[in-house]
Amino acid sequence: MLHSLPSLGSFADPAALAIVGGGTLLALVLRTPGRDLFRGFAALGVLWRKPFQADALLTQIDALSRISARHGVVRLDRTVIADPDIAAAVGRIVDGAGGEEISALLDQRRVARAERHRAAIDLWSAAAEIFPAMGMVGTLIGLVRMFAGMTDPATIGGSMAVAVLATLYGALAANLIAMPIAARLKRLARAELIERARLVQPLAALAERERPRVRRDAA
Amino acid sequence: MLHSLPSLGSFADPAALAIVGGGTLLALVLRTPGRDLFRGFAALGVLWRKPFQADALLTQIDALSRISARHGVVRLDRTVIADPDIAAAVGRIVDGAGGEEISALLDQRRVARAERHRAAIDLWSAAAEIFPAMGMVGTLIGLVRMFAGMTDPATIGGSMAVAVLATLYGALAANLIAMPIAARLKRLARAELIERARLVQPLAALAERERPRVRRDAA
Amino acid sequence: MLHSLPSLGSFADPAALAIVGGGTLLALVLRTPGRDLFRGFAALGVLWRKPFQADALLTQIDALSRISARHGVVRLDRTVIADPDIAAAVGRIVDGAGGEEISALLDQRRVARAERHRAAIDLWSAAAEIFPAMGMVGTLIGLVRMFAGMTDPATIGGSMAVAVLATLYGALAANLIAMPIAARLKRLARAELIERARLVQPLAALAERERPRVRRDAA
Amino acid sequence: MLHSLPSLGSFADPAALAIVGGGTLLALVLRTPGRDLFRGFAALGVLWRKPFQADALLTQIDALSRISARHGVVRLDRTVIADPDIAAAVGRIVDGAGGEEISALLDQRRVARAERHRAAIDLWSAAAEIFPAMGMVGTLIGLVRMFAGMTDPATIGGSMAVAVLATLYGALAANLIAMPIAARLKRLARAELIERARLVQPLAALAERERPRVRRDAA
Amino acid sequence: MLHSLPSLGSFADPAALAIVGGGTLLALVLRTPGRDLFRGFAALGVLWRKPFQADALLTQIDALSRISARHGVVRLDRTVIADPDIAAAVGRIVDGAGGEEISALLDQRRVARAERHRAAIDLWSAAAEIFPAMGMVGTLIGLVRMFAGMTDPATIGGSMAVAVLATLYGALAANLIAMPIAARLKRLARAELIERARLVQPLAALAERERPRVRRDAA
Repeated sequence: MLHSLPSLGSFADPAALAIVGGGTLLALVLRTPGRDLFRGFAALGVLWRKPFQADALLTQIDALSRISARHGVVRLDRTVIADPDIAAAVGRIVDGAGGEEISALLDQRRVARAERHRAAIDLWSAAAEIFPAMGMVGTLIGLVRMFAGMTDPATIGGSMAVAVLATLYGALAANLIAMPIAARLKRLARAELIERARLVQPLAALAERERPRVRRDAA
Repeated sequence: MLHSLPSLGSFADPAALAIVGGGTLLALVLRTPGRDLFRGFAALGVLWRKPFQADALLTQIDALSRISARHGVVRLDRTVIADPDIAAAVGRIVDGAGGEEISALLDQRRVARAERHRAAIDLWSAAAEIFPAMGMVGTLIGLVRMFAGMTDPATIGGSMAVAVLATLYGALAANLIAMPIAARLKRLARAELIERARLVQPLAALAERERPRVRRDAA
Repeated sequence: MLHSLPSLGSFADPAALAIVGGGTLLALVLRTPGRDLFRGFAALGVLWRKPFQADALLTQIDALSRISARHGVVRLDRTVIADPDIAAAVGRIVDGAGGEEISALLDQRRVARAERHRAAIDLWSAAAEIFPAMGMVGTLIGLVRMFAGMTDPATIGGSMAVAVLATLYGALAANLIAMPIAARLKRLARAELIERARLVQPLAALAERERPRVRRDAA
Repeated sequence: MLHSLPSLGSFADPAALAIVGGGTLLALVLRTPGRDLFRGFAALGVLWRKPFQADALLTQIDALSRISARHGVVRLDRTVIADPDIAAAVGRIVDGAGGEEISALLDQRRVARAERHRAAIDLWSAAAEIFPAMGMVGTLIGLVRMFAGMTDPATIGGSMAVAVLATLYGALAANLIAMPIAARLKRLARAELIERARLVQPLAALAERERPRVRRDAA
Repeated sequence: MLHSLPSLGSFADPAALAIVGGGTLLALVLRTPGRDLFRGFAALGVLWRKPFQADALLTQIDALSRISARHGVVRLDRTVIADPDIAAAVGRIVDGAGGEEISALLDQRRVARAERHRAAIDLWSAAAEIFPAMGMVGTLIGLVRMFAGMTDPATIGGSMAVAVLATLYGALAANLIAMPIAARLKRLARAELIERARLVQPLAALAERERPRVRRDAA
């Protein structure tokens, strides 16, 4: 089979590509609000990142805890806190929030983050289902064209080859693009959800310890 | 492929359209009670709306709360309350309902609303499954017709083109109409459910605060 | 396509009908115990009924409650109670059952009713999956017959038309018969489950109120 | 179609049967440990039994309870207790187990039984998925054979008939053998699970009543 | 069919094999992080092992418990403890951990183990879905090649045979390789999860008993 493969050119067809790619994009745009569409494509940037690990953040919380024990929580330099969840929590601790309030804040932020991840995962899961459907659409359009113009039997072979290409593109795009992206995003989202749960306890403990001092200072 | 596309006319076939569209509509009518059918089509009107946001309503509740603190809850001008849930809650507060009763009322209304949304989503999810099936039905009818009348081989091509069109219509309708509608309705319903949960606490608090005054006035 | 439709007769084939209908029935009989099979077909009688509404029954419970308050619960004319759940509950109340016992009785009856509904729904959901499979079986039988007897090419068209009919029947039966029935039964069952839950509280309250009196009378 | 059916012999093909049956068996053996495989086939013996009913066993527990009330629980003739769960429970009661211990024992035995049932159900559910796949495998093998040896067009018809038979066998075996067995086993397992729950309370009550006496006798 | 089977050679095609196997591997590599990919293949080594049984470990815990009762928990020779969970638990007991801490440790380790198992199961479940898709891809590539080079009708048969082989490989690989592996791994993971739960109670009890002694020794 290999030695008699036709040139790769016979596997490239712009019309089939336009139908499969454009049709899938159209279906996604129709079903997804603009903001979630943007999120789904922006998520491609984090695709090859390592899964989120809470360890470095836990070390930082430890350091913050030692500093605030010595100098008071108001002295914390919040500009060095890169993580938005920890920054938000420390901000509230400075305002005198207790442990329960901090737990609630972090849980709420985790739920909102999971919801944002879900939007990106949904986009690519939907793409994995739509790509093959649009591949079939391309093939059907090719078939209609072929049957409608079936005057010269000699051209049937070439037309069929083009029609079949659309299904091929759909299957490849689903299995090699959309499904891998959806699977990776799902894994990253899951890991971040589990890891971020580890931040709740130490931040809540810090809040509990600092609260009386913050209140006293404020008084 | 593009340069030799037959005129768009060869992609339009009223009989195939009637089978796919009419068959799907028939299947939906058979499986859906009239009221839910109406709801499913009425839901098309909200399709391009922005997701429900509770913020404006929370501001309004705040304003209502301030007015009733000054002038008493009975003085609230209920005609300016557009949201039916808030209107119903305020009506009960005026009648002397406590916080728990208001929470129960709003939860019950949210469940009933979710049930109504579900009916519309179900309709379009079902349509997304039935459209391709009816596309296949149209193609099979075309094939039967073709095989039954297969006296002149020259007409086979044209008949096949028409038969294939039905499957094409089914795939396009499912992926570009029914599935996007179902996905959008699902997202809107989910957002409204989450956002409306934020109204419960302030309205219940208002009820708790006003209750003694309402009772005293009634006495 | 319409103007050249062959007579409807070419769409009727008793053998294909027998394979699709008979095969599906056989598969259902093999997988379903007799009692559930009967239930599934008996459920067709309620298909076009309105969803169960508890309102009339709640009014009746109210009336029963007033009568028993005046004349004692033993005076209730149980022959006028058409609903079996209310009848069973009143019977137990007369025997001196308390509110909790009545709640438990009604919950148990609701679970048993849900289980019966599930049997009917399962039957038609299974039919919706088996019909297309049997359509394919009919087509395959037709194909075998055609290939085996492929001596005269002129007869192939007619044979193919007949073979294709079986798949057509399977798709139509699944989408226009089995799936609508299953969807309607599911909706009715769900509505009855939710509505019947509203009967529990007033009947339990009636039991609580009457219990001391029943006990005293019995003593 | 009926009057021109070829002899039934044209629907029997040993090679297709071997591929579909043997391939499915091979796939099942590869995925299922020996003990579960045995369980799955052993379960065929109970297929036509009536669903498990706890009523007779409840009567027996009642009788046992009366005997032990009169003569002491150690006098119970355990040889007449056919049901293994009741036998195990009575054995523990004689050893002085309390009500909670008996509940825990019966729950644990019910979980283990459900796990065993699940193994048998899984086997036949898997078979229902593998049969059609192996039907397709048989057809593909037939097609390869046909295309490879496509020198004489006259033999194509016969070869195709044989190839199609494999798919036919797969569809029939899935819908008329594997799926009905899985559905029946599922129903029986579910019924037994629900019914056996009714045995827990009376056996636990018996244990509670007899415990002091057993302890006293043992002392 | 058997007597006229072509030589097995006609069922071997390196290009089809490369497309199906290589394409599936590519899709798996794209969707799975390296560590999970390694885990999935490493899991093949445990495939034919017996399901995990806690009995031997329970006996060992019993022995450890007797030794520590006589000589103190610090005397336990941790080098003879092969199981990592028990070793970790004993290590913590020596450090003075209480029963609750040991339960939490073992639960956390069980969750982490389940997560690792899930990664391997997911890999093979994904492979079971991708293999048939890549079989279709191979067939489509073969068809394109065939249609594109359809000058000599005499070669069509051979080309078709090769094209069909890819689908055959995909179906066989999914049903006889990927699905059995996934099913076996799922069963082993489930059994280990259930069995390991039995280790928690005795190790927690050991910790509770030894804690005061460890603390006293440490003091």
